[in-house]
Amino acid sequence: MTPAERVEAAYDRIESADRPEIWIHLRPRHDVLAEAAGIDPGLPLAGLVAAVKDNIDVAGLPTTAGAPSYAYRPDADAPAVARLRAAGAVVLGKTNLDQFATGLVGTRSPHGAVRNAWDPARISGGSSSGSAVAVALGIADIALGTDTAGSGRVPAALNGIVGVKPTKGLVPVTGVVPACYTLDCVTVFARDLRLARTAAEAIEGPDAADPLSRTGTRLPAPPARPRVAVPAEKHLRDMADGWREAFDTAVARLASTGVEIVEADVTPLLEAAQLLYGGAFVAERYAAVGGHLDKHRDLIGTDLDPTVASIVLAGREKTAADWAADTARLAALGAAARTALDGCAALLTPTTTWHPTLDEVAEDPVGANARMGRFTNFANLLDHASLAVPAGFVDGLPFGVMFTGPAFSDRSLAVLAERFADPGLDLFVVGAHLTGQPLNAQLVQAGGTLVGPARTAAGYRLHALATQRPKPGLVRTTEGRPDASGIEGEIWRLPAAGFGVLTAAVPAPMAIGTVELADGRQISGFLVEPYAVEKAPDITRFGGWRAYLASM
Amino acid sequence: MTPAERVEAAYDRIESADRPEIWIHLRPRHDVLAEAAGIDPGLPLAGLVAAVKDNIDVAGLPTTAGAPSYAYRPDADAPAVARLRAAGAVVLGKTNLDQFATGLVGTRSPHGAVRNAWDPARISGGSSSGSAVAVALGIADIALGTDTAGSGRVPAALNGIVGVKPTKGLVPVTGVVPACYTLDCVTVFARDLRLARTAAEAIEGPDAADPLSRTGTRLPAPPARPRVAVPAEKHLRDMADGWREAFDTAVARLASTGVEIVEADVTPLLEAAQLLYGGAFVAERYAAVGGHLDKHRDLIGTDLDPTVASIVLAGREKTAADWAADTARLAALGAAARTALDGCAALLTPTTTWHPTLDEVAEDPVGANARMGRFTNFANLLDHASLAVPAGFVDGLPFGVMFTGPAFSDRSLAVLAERFADPGLDLFVVGAHLTGQPLNAQLVQAGGTLVGPARTAAGYRLHALATQRPKPGLVRTTEGRPDASGIEGEIWRLPAAGFGVLTAAVPAPMAIGTVELADGRQISGFLVEPYAVEKAPDITRFGGWRAYLASM
Repeated sequence: MTPAERVEAAYDRIESADRPEIWIHLRPRHDVLAEAAGIDPGLPLAGLVAAVKDNIDVAGLPTTAGAPSYAYRPDADAPAVARLRAAGAVVLGKTNLDQFATGLVGTRSPHGAVRNAWDPARISGGSSSGSAVAVALGIADIALGTDTAGSGRVPAALNGIVGVKPTKGLVPVTGVVPACYTLDCVTVFARDLRLARTAAEAIEGPDAADPLSRTGTRLPAPPARPRVAVPAEKHLRDMADGWREAFDTAVARLASTGVEIVEADVTPLLEAAQLLYGGAFVAERYAAVGGHLDKHRDLIGTDLDPTVASIVLAGREKTAADWAADTARLAALGAAARTALDGCAALLTPTTTWHPTLDEVAEDPVGANARMGRFTNFANLLDHASLAVPAGFVDGLPFGVMFTGPAFSDRSLAVLAERFADPGLDLFVVGAHLTGQPLNAQLVQAGGTLVGPARTAAGYRLHALATQRPKPGLVRTTEGRPDASGIEGEIWRLPAAGFGVLTAAVPAPMAIGTVELADGRQISGFLVEPYAVEKAPDITRFGGWRAYLASM
Repeated sequence: MTPAERVEAAYDRIESADRPEIWIHLRPRHDVLAEAAGIDPGLPLAGLVAAVKDNIDVAGLPTTAGAPSYAYRPDADAPAVARLRAAGAVVLGKTNLDQFATGLVGTRSPHGAVRNAWDPARISGGSSSGSAVAVALGIADIALGTDTAGSGRVPAALNGIVGVKPTKGLVPVTGVVPACYTLDCVTVFARDLRLARTAAEAIEGPDAADPLSRTGTRLPAPPARPRVAVPAEKHLRDMADGWREAFDTAVARLASTGVEIVEADVTPLLEAAQLLYGGAFVAERYAAVGGHLDKHRDLIGTDLDPTVASIVLAGREKTAADWAADTARLAALGAAARTALDGCAALLTPTTTWHPTLDEVAEDPVGANARMGRFTNFANLLDHASLAVPAGFVDGLPFGVMFTGPAFSDRSLAVLAERFADPGLDLFVVGAHLTGQPLNAQLVQAGGTLVGPARTAAGYRLHALATQRPKPGLVRTTEGRPDASGIEGEIWRLPAAGFGVLTAAVPAPMAIGTVELADGRQISGFLVEPYAVEKAPDITRFGGWRAYLASM
């Protein structure tokens, strides 16, 4: 698709989706089309269609943070937006949010509650509600959100998409309406992990105008057998029906990729999470927008969301001594958290704990919201990077998990998440794909890694085929001949896509089928069409292709 | 001296110095002697005598922080003390301080004002008053202080000693009464820079019990020609008479060692300094000890210092929103400070701005104090390491300067300070000490670095001596022979001590004298006793020793 076609498709989807609450400002189609026409097709995000949360400046569009009375019209794009555009993306418009980015629900907006992409009776999650739903519905390829307490991750989980919350300071917060100035992050939503990471890396980088902008040394990629922590049993209670089981499945899936799972007592992290709204740090919200609320008290209930107002205004009552005490407490919890996660490449948790309906949130706006931040509220306080990824469905609705690690672990978390998203498929090879043999490079190119040597069950026979490139053909037989005691080979693990491409390219007479190994496992492996072995010499007695070649 | 002799000498000096206000708790001589008897002489600080500021725990002695009503008796040494002892030091006792480490004057204590080591009518500086004076008077070899606003540096400057304020978190603050919990550092005083650094490195290191303990990668040593910033003219006004000139002299001295001096607008640093007492962060002091003051209001004026109490109690009035705003402001100032000092290995400043008398401080306790922190108040807020070193005298009283750099620049600052303390002495060599010649290693071993090639003035003659190892003898003559147009050689710069050792070891007939260079400079250089050249062939025509050797 050309950029223009993508834009046309996006506007068509906007119409067919009929979710007007997603947008606070949607640009006219012809403006965006005109912009798309000039995109350099060589750019990394060329022609991808983006949505921007309305607490992030886009030049020429008002920034409202969800409060019409707060609106201002910025002259310049926020660096995050400017960098997205410089990478080739086109911005459709500004999306709805929990006002002043205060909420995890997506309902706290005078523009209306944003309905979930999968079930309009349920919440979208927030505060980056419109951005997440725009991506989940296939309207936007990429969307920018922000995340202080989980606003870039909870809606990703509830809408079945990826949410990248970078290390604090990696993406400038210049041109972003602060929620908690020292804790805010710009985040990225996408349906696919790789695109999400590409977009996140496109907007990262120092910014002289952002005092909290920082660079640092990336943590190295996790080792071949990384250790990942999961919360102890006691921290996984009181989740929605079926969510505990879904998380267990996710853990098992990660473990199946060779990750060592260890149980961690994450009490210090959960206690740190309590400090975000339960302590003095909420005063940062008052410092950010309290003046506006004080001045426009008459608008509370109309323009200004009453729940948000009550949270922000409560920040005024905290003392600096409370803050000092909370800072000391947070430092202690941070040290305890580091100890609890020592030696682990990441912490794997559910992203949130339940998925309420719009009605449930309306009944208990603060309580329903508070339950949702158990695993997200601590990340920015503890200087974590975090990555929310889909992990299947419960009762037809998306379930998500989150990889969380120390500052500058962003790429390392992505490697783990990629491994989780695609645990890999095993392939048994016996001939030209063996390590050191001519076609082995195909496996490596497909992203394969050697799992190790293995041997077929008894009864397989090996033939030297008359193919152009010498290859063996593996054939299972039922004859109990004494020389058919198993054929040596190797197991390779390939990403699903690589496995597919490789399979599709296998030439006749070769085939990918199922091979029984000596240990009884059934795995995919190279087989051969029978015609090819009719006149092919039986080399079973060598026990494997390498031994046969060595005998030549 | 044996450890026991050092202890005896320390107690003798305590008596002869007659400064009882230095001590809050002095251990009995026989206890310390008994401890000294067991010291392993192989330890890095074996038998050195130490004093500890009374806001740092020493097992078995009360910790009072200068307030008798606050006293508690710790079971364990603070890690800083335990590590000092493990390195072989013996602790004499606990020293006086500005109560709760709140002050830069040394007068805010119910134990009395600590008088300056050089002039008892003047203040010691504080808050680590007793520790600094104990070292300056030669009672203790090393003393521990603390530094939040300058307490480990101002008294170093006023008493003519070295004060090391490490990067925050390098030395644990476990067992230290907090002043501002997130800003406090344990510091080291010594009369000599190397001992100060040895002691500081002995007490550094992680501590699981200190949540703010941290490790990091040391910044590399400064390059051969480092850039050092000095404050712009406008920031050096309003100092004591003669201090501006003393600072200029110090700058010139540093420049003479090959450091490039650049003027920096340090406005952001000085504005950050204002936030320490002028903003909400003072609430950390209330969070630390405000409860004690609230409970013991009746003791204000007796046990509790009224100035300290007024400062700490004012912290109660600050709001968390003030704190949030100050945090944002500090972040902006930090970014501006980094920009202002970009490319500089350090900032060189006067350590403080004046040296008041006890009377002057009594007249205006807050105002006199406030003037003293101009160059020290910002360091911990901006996450700087800092090193205060003596820089001569003004009117017979010590004047000090300070090297300040980013976190983990501690060692790099020490290299600069060493260079400042000993700018090096130049030596002109013409023979066996030239680069590549047999005795060149002596220069390198003595800490020498090559300044560059040079040539003598006309009129010097060179002779090939009949020494065991072939050497030339450089002799100045007054004959205007056309071949005596200057002898080639090299200038080497050696630390003063290395220069001395080398000179002392020069064998006959060689000598170190003064050589006039072609550019008119007079510098030290190798000469030869006349007897040795009487029968030595004149090799002047070669123009230098290397050319002569090449002709052989």
